[in-house]
Amino acid sequence: MSKTKKKNELTFKEYTEGILNGDRSVLSQAITLVESTLPKHNDLAQEIINYCLPHTGKSIRIGITGIPGVGKSTFIETFGLYLTGEQKRTLAVLAIDPTSERSKGSIMGDKVRMEELSLDSHAYIRPSPTGGSLGGVAKSTRESILLCEAAGFNTIIIETVGVGQSEIAVDSMVDFFLLLLLAGAGDEIQGMKRGIMEMADAVAITKADGDNTGKAELAKKEFENAIHLFPSKEGGWTPEVTTCSSIENKGIKEIWDNIIKHRGLIEQSGVLERKRRDQARKWMHETILYGLEKSFYSNEDISKIVSELESEVTQGEKSPFTAAQELLNNYFKNFSK
Amino acid sequence: MSKTKKKNELTFKEYTEGILNGDRSVLSQAITLVESTLPKHNDLAQEIINYCLPHTGKSIRIGITGIPGVGKSTFIETFGLYLTGEQKRTLAVLAIDPTSERSKGSIMGDKVRMEELSLDSHAYIRPSPTGGSLGGVAKSTRESILLCEAAGFNTIIIETVGVGQSEIAVDSMVDFFLLLLLAGAGDEIQGMKRGIMEMADAVAITKADGDNTGKAELAKKEFENAIHLFPSKEGGWTPEVTTCSSIENKGIKEIWDNIIKHRGLIEQSGVLERKRRDQARKWMHETILYGLEKSFYSNEDISKIVSELESEVTQGEKSPFTAAQELLNNYFKNFSK
Repeated sequence: MSKTKKKNELTFKEYTEGILNGDRSVLSQAITLVESTLPKHNDLAQEIINYCLPHTGKSIRIGITGIPGVGKSTFIETFGLYLTGEQKRTLAVLAIDPTSERSKGSIMGDKVRMEELSLDSHAYIRPSPTGGSLGGVAKSTRESILLCEAAGFNTIIIETVGVGQSEIAVDSMVDFFLLLLLAGAGDEIQGMKRGIMEMADAVAITKADGDNTGKAELAKKEFENAIHLFPSKEGGWTPEVTTCSSIENKGIKEIWDNIIKHRGLIEQSGVLERKRRDQARKWMHETILYGLEKSFYSNEDISKIVSELESEVTQGEKSPFTAAQELLNNYFKNFSK
Repeated sequence: MSKTKKKNELTFKEYTEGILNGDRSVLSQAITLVESTLPKHNDLAQEIINYCLPHTGKSIRIGITGIPGVGKSTFIETFGLYLTGEQKRTLAVLAIDPTSERSKGSIMGDKVRMEELSLDSHAYIRPSPTGGSLGGVAKSTRESILLCEAAGFNTIIIETVGVGQSEIAVDSMVDFFLLLLLAGAGDEIQGMKRGIMEMADAVAITKADGDNTGKAELAKKEFENAIHLFPSKEGGWTPEVTTCSSIENKGIKEIWDNIIKHRGLIEQSGVLERKRRDQARKWMHETILYGLEKSFYSNEDISKIVSELESEVTQGEKSPFTAAQELLNNYFKNFSK
């Protein structure tokens, strides 16, 4: 274990004690460590996570997705304040957004958008890590969930923007997946990645207030009809469609009640335990694949020739399999040098 | 190139000449070569495919999926006979079914189910390869498509059973994806893998005959309503929902007309070209990942410890990331020996 202390760096003991005591400043530094790509940070991060492991797994992990404009931040602010207030829960909000190129300025913007929640002593908001591949961001988010649980948060929200592959990653790390949709004219989920709707454990039509109320109710009916055409989820759960208004604080309690109902079902039926085990197994194998892929594509000899072969393949000059085999041979030859 | 001829084995020249002359017996042997896991077969197969490459890519590639009982074989028989008959096309039918544990007996069963089509001189039916991982089966199916095209078939059907991950693989190798559904009581796609419906370029409700006609029409309306909630596909294509009867030969022409309409759209808009390029690129990178994964999990030292670590992970004794890192370190250490 790393016991030498450097300037501005915490020791293993300071990290673990701080986290288990619920010290937010230490938690934030630990998450930064987890997000770091430096090997020595990685080693320390793994030690910390393994130490914290017995204190994890007790929270309700909720994924929330929706296209930009659906009102995710406003919803999470209202929903979060309901959880820390009336439900007396503690809440950590993490974000997955691998495309994010946010400056420090807009990270502040993120906090400002959840102004009240970010001042709440029972809530912890961690902005998206900047840049990085989906694999990397997904890995650090998964590890951050564990750290937040060890720090005592009993509710975790993973926020993701529903236009990429990130919600598939989120689906493999949460217990409940909430899809936020905007009522529109038949094109409610235009621009949304295919397949998301079938992942949802619940759908909430946002901005059901003022002039928009009727449209939202109509959209609710449409989605209710559609959702019955999908296979029911594990444990026989059928997703519910509701409407809500973050600014009028309507439909918020109903969404939480629905999550608790789902919780009871998956706990009693053993689905939760199985799901968590499957997720852990999947994380392990995905991390392996990610490591293999990273080693391959960051190999100097490979990166020199990969784009040339790719263009031969897309021009139809070489079969994809031959090109792949050439690259693999090249890669494995390096090892046996 | 392999020019030495062994007993019962064809030479490179015999393979390529036979394929380009449309000799089915040679084509079948070449596909067997492609399905083989022996390295020497693999090398020869790659040579053959690369030689054939300039003669590939001209066919219409159609994926057809549906749960067992939907009537896939009967549909493909009727649809195939329409294509080779009225449309004067040539048709190869390949199957992806990685879970298949078919004996020789049931391979025959497959042929018997498409009795008339299998006797048609303009059709070629290749039963599913037995066993093997999805990655392996997907790879050999992709290569088989190329061989069938080089042998002159201008229509390729890839059949898959819609209950696993195989249809995702199929989606990455076809131009048009047809989903067959059975009319039922609200649970039309129970048991079907989530996300399939959003992949479909068209949905056909099968067995729309006799007493079932009304139910099929009702299901059609339901799915029509549902499908408009999905984002439209590349090039602005909106999937059509139709009904059909294989035994009464109804709705078959309409499905083909729809495929041709789709074809015109994706050819003119450049979507087809882009899709094929993207698929080739994807095949290359997937083949690389598959090769890396195979090398890793077939490594002797790894296979000894992987299940032990997996159980530590699912018991919550070790973090998935630490376990993965231990395995990766072990693997890479081997190489540098």
